[in-house]
Amino acid sequence: MKQAKRTKWILDYFHPTPNFPTSGIQFQWYANLLRNPTAFRQAVKELADRYKDMHVDVIAGLDSRGFIFSSALAYEMKLPLILIRKPGKLPGATEKIEYALEYGRNSLEIEKDSLRQGQRVVIVDDIIATGGTAAASCSLVERLDAIVVEVACLAELTELKGRDKIHHPVFSLITIDAK
Amino acid sequence: MKQAKRTKWILDYFHPTPNFPTSGIQFQWYANLLRNPTAFRQAVKELADRYKDMHVDVIAGLDSRGFIFSSALAYEMKLPLILIRKPGKLPGATEKIEYALEYGRNSLEIEKDSLRQGQRVVIVDDIIATGGTAAASCSLVERLDAIVVEVACLAELTELKGRDKIHHPVFSLITIDAK
Repeated sequence: MKQAKRTKWILDYFHPTPNFPTSGIQFQWYANLLRNPTAFRQAVKELADRYKDMHVDVIAGLDSRGFIFSSALAYEMKLPLILIRKPGKLPGATEKIEYALEYGRNSLEIEKDSLRQGQRVVIVDDIIATGGTAAASCSLVERLDAIVVEVACLAELTELKGRDKIHHPVFSLITIDAK
Repeated sequence: MKQAKRTKWILDYFHPTPNFPTSGIQFQWYANLLRNPTAFRQAVKELADRYKDMHVDVIAGLDSRGFIFSSALAYEMKLPLILIRKPGKLPGATEKIEYALEYGRNSLEIEKDSLRQGQRVVIVDDIIATGGTAAASCSLVERLDAIVVEVACLAELTELKGRDKIHHPVFSLITIDAK
């Protein structure tokens, strides 16, 4: 329980918005964290602290809010940053994966030359909800013969059980149960 | 010419892709910069060095690749980070602006409570092309009675004359003339 205790302060920076972006969804928004440099740095440093001894080679950031945390984490850890993007955004040769959403399908791409065989990758997003995006991202990393060390996020919405869909370790600074 | 001299090295990390995302467009892509921690840090530190004595209160990041540089810059400078986003992404009360693209229109939003009157803002994007997004972002910042110190970017595509559209100072680490 040390983790929860140490990082529970982050929850104070979250502001839930009901029925956004669509009816029935409660959007968990952390603008106040980004607006507070001390809080933002502390969150990033807690992630960096988590991974400093885990032989991580690369930080992968998920489009688009994942870019915020992955960029600062890569910067702090002095690690390479690669991007996993919505389709049609990356030039050159890509690997593409389609995955199911609650309604419809989505897809993600990674540049084929962005990882080498055996590289150890931490995938970073802001929030893990249903886990679909994170799970698809893990598959992309593995298609490039690289290794998913962990999926890291600021917050995990536990009631959506995203962790069950991700067949890799998941680390969240906080968990939010909106029930 | 001191600026060009100091940062010309960044050009080595750019890789132009012809006809991406559409025919006739040359996409300037800097994946190699992000993959090289020393280079990425150096680029961010050059931006931080630019602004350290300019009494900047807030860094504003543009959706979505602008998040990468704005996040690391805000982190390095210990400044608040706010987001200017594509429509429908920010919960709560927003200011919205529509602007013309070469074909069609686009829009951007900012949260109304993200800036206070008189705050001095640096708007950060990765690349200034036609300048439409940057110019619209400046208008949003001003609608909140805040002050645009400068628009900062990694690279400016000079042949598109984006600078002419932005009625505020523009600072680019490098300029690219694709003609």
